[in-house]
Amino acid sequence: MVVLGIDPGYAIVGYGAINYKNNSFTPISFGSIITKADTDFNRRLEIIYDDLVEVIKRTKPDAMSIERLYFQTNAKTAIMVAEARGVILLAAQKMGVPVFEYTPLQVKTAVTGYGKAKKPQVMEMTRRLLRLKETPKPDDTADALAIAITHTQSAGSGLRQYMMKRGI
Amino acid sequence: MVVLGIDPGYAIVGYGAINYKNNSFTPISFGSIITKADTDFNRRLEIIYDDLVEVIKRTKPDAMSIERLYFQTNAKTAIMVAEARGVILLAAQKMGVPVFEYTPLQVKTAVTGYGKAKKPQVMEMTRRLLRLKETPKPDDTADALAIAITHTQSAGSGLRQYMMKRGI
Repeated sequence: MVVLGIDPGYAIVGYGAINYKNNSFTPISFGSIITKADTDFNRRLEIIYDDLVEVIKRTKPDAMSIERLYFQTNAKTAIMVAEARGVILLAAQKMGVPVFEYTPLQVKTAVTGYGKAKKPQVMEMTRRLLRLKETPKPDDTADALAIAITHTQSAGSGLRQYMMKRGI
Repeated sequence: MVVLGIDPGYAIVGYGAINYKNNSFTPISFGSIITKADTDFNRRLEIIYDDLVEVIKRTKPDAMSIERLYFQTNAKTAIMVAEARGVILLAAQKMGVPVFEYTPLQVKTAVTGYGKAKKPQVMEMTRRLLRLKETPKPDDTADALAIAITHTQSAGSGLRQYMMKRGI
């Protein structure tokens, strides 16, 4: 099963495609889509959409795994992140890839087995599970890989997918 | 100048294309894109995107005018509206239509000349300016037409477009 993890954003969208087979992980492709602050915002949305469609074509994921969005202290930033997330969901929909959402707690628990794990612990476990020499940079890329791993630990639950679709 | 006004949402996206010429308005096409609650959310985003692309092809707007999004009391709803707004902005970008944002205060002031105008007053003035027999329904459609009118009263300000692009 190939899972494409996504850490959503508008300045940086982290992505990480992994193959999960026989309880083992193989990274396929990972990186970040970066859009510059001096680029028109709608053009940034277009770059995210187009680049993500290319990533999906290249990695052929069976599922997209994406972090659930929560409100941030900065309302303007939160709206812009949600707008970017909208085009990410559209890219998945257009390419026929089912989407699964996970909370930060679910990511921590799935990757480290411990819901109160700190970010460095999550990153180190992600690195080890994928047998990488170094933690991928920027953090958004490593986060995306952790989110992809999370789905492999949660997959097979039809109820979860149902709940996600209904926003429960 | 043809302006396409948009009242963003995920259940209902109001749209209204008007032609503004010689200080007079002619409605070209208006209505709402409605997506059902029992439809998968990502599919709803796709319907909004596809239908809006069709509206743009049909009405050939010189500009899109859209209401600026503010945080609502319901965080989950606000995120979903912003996600839908993201695909609306993407549709405009893909079709080469420049986007202008206006606050509710700007809409009230542009349509009625009075920033504290109530919703029924804004709707009635919109109806009159467009010489329609009845106020379009649902409200989202009438709102979209009011937002389109707003742009005709604000256009020509390069500074405004610059400020919008930079999110000032």
